[in-house]
Amino acid sequence: MSKPLEFWFEFASTYSYPAAMQVEAACAAHGVPLIWRPFLLGPVFGAQGMTDSPFNMFPVKGAYMWRDMARICAASDLPFHKPTTFPRGSMLAARICAANANAEWIGDFIRAVYSANFAEDLDVGAPEVIGPVLEALGQDAGSIIDNAATPESKQALRDLTEDAIARGIFGAPSFTVGEELYWGHDRMEMALKHAAAGD
Amino acid sequence: MSKPLEFWFEFASTYSYPAAMQVEAACAAHGVPLIWRPFLLGPVFGAQGMTDSPFNMFPVKGAYMWRDMARICAASDLPFHKPTTFPRGSMLAARICAANANAEWIGDFIRAVYSANFAEDLDVGAPEVIGPVLEALGQDAGSIIDNAATPESKQALRDLTEDAIARGIFGAPSFTVGEELYWGHDRMEMALKHAAAGD
Repeated sequence: MSKPLEFWFEFASTYSYPAAMQVEAACAAHGVPLIWRPFLLGPVFGAQGMTDSPFNMFPVKGAYMWRDMARICAASDLPFHKPTTFPRGSMLAARICAANANAEWIGDFIRAVYSANFAEDLDVGAPEVIGPVLEALGQDAGSIIDNAATPESKQALRDLTEDAIARGIFGAPSFTVGEELYWGHDRMEMALKHAAAGD
Repeated sequence: MSKPLEFWFEFASTYSYPAAMQVEAACAAHGVPLIWRPFLLGPVFGAQGMTDSPFNMFPVKGAYMWRDMARICAASDLPFHKPTTFPRGSMLAARICAANANAEWIGDFIRAVYSANFAEDLDVGAPEVIGPVLEALGQDAGSIIDNAATPESKQALRDLTEDAIARGIFGAPSFTVGEELYWGHDRMEMALKHAAAGD
């Protein structure tokens, strides 16, 4: 009996991009239910005493990450264009996800936002980018974006971020299966096997 | 025509342990020549402004790493015992490697030191631990340990560490194939495929 896989992602996070593009199909292939868990890395890094992305704080590691991202995306046939701004604002898209967790279009929305940031080099922090993404999915962009600014939507995302910290999450993407935590795109397969085995 | 794989490792580094135990057999299986590259992480971290292992500076990440190490070692049938001291002194073992890079016993020595640290929980910084490791390999421990303290041996290790920094290495284990850098135990397979393809 398989267990659900919780996928913890941050729209600004580079390695979350290939994971987000692949995780729904990978879960389906393993017969594992997927639960999308958007959160914000800013408060998570802040809780560790960091004030910026570690890739900006440690430029040598950052330079490697961009090369590694290009390799990983090439190996997975994913288009990749290094964003001209990093990290990009992720609050709006994350609030939309938090407020629409069970919408049937949420997976397509998540993938479209990642593509906009990491393949099309668009400013996904802006409603002018997120609006057309929603419209292309046949959704009412205006009401969804307005709803993302309600106290309930803001609180939903804060709750997810606090839950992430409480679970010992320190980076993105992360995967949880019950109490077990897996960090990084390269742990997706291990997490899926655990979820599929269900033990 | 395959290219050589350079394996950059630090005896105190946790993820270097499974990589060091597996890399020689993996290279042989791929028909790839292996070059051992010991170096010290201290100066590498210092060049990035860090004063301790990131796993000690960021305890939430450190807690995850120990759990992840246990999982990885279990999956590879490698014994693992969390060292009671971390990080352990690696200078002596690294100088011995730098001074005996082409000795036929060097691979066995490297694996034995990692086992002492991460499976037997021994203080590999101490000559009292390294001496018996060398003797078990049929080597003259006294003269090898004395030789590790010569200016030539010290300089050989300094040169390797400076070379690591010059190549953009920021952590261990790392792998290089020509100019291409791969970081982390979980990139070993990708690095091996590159080396085997030789392009």
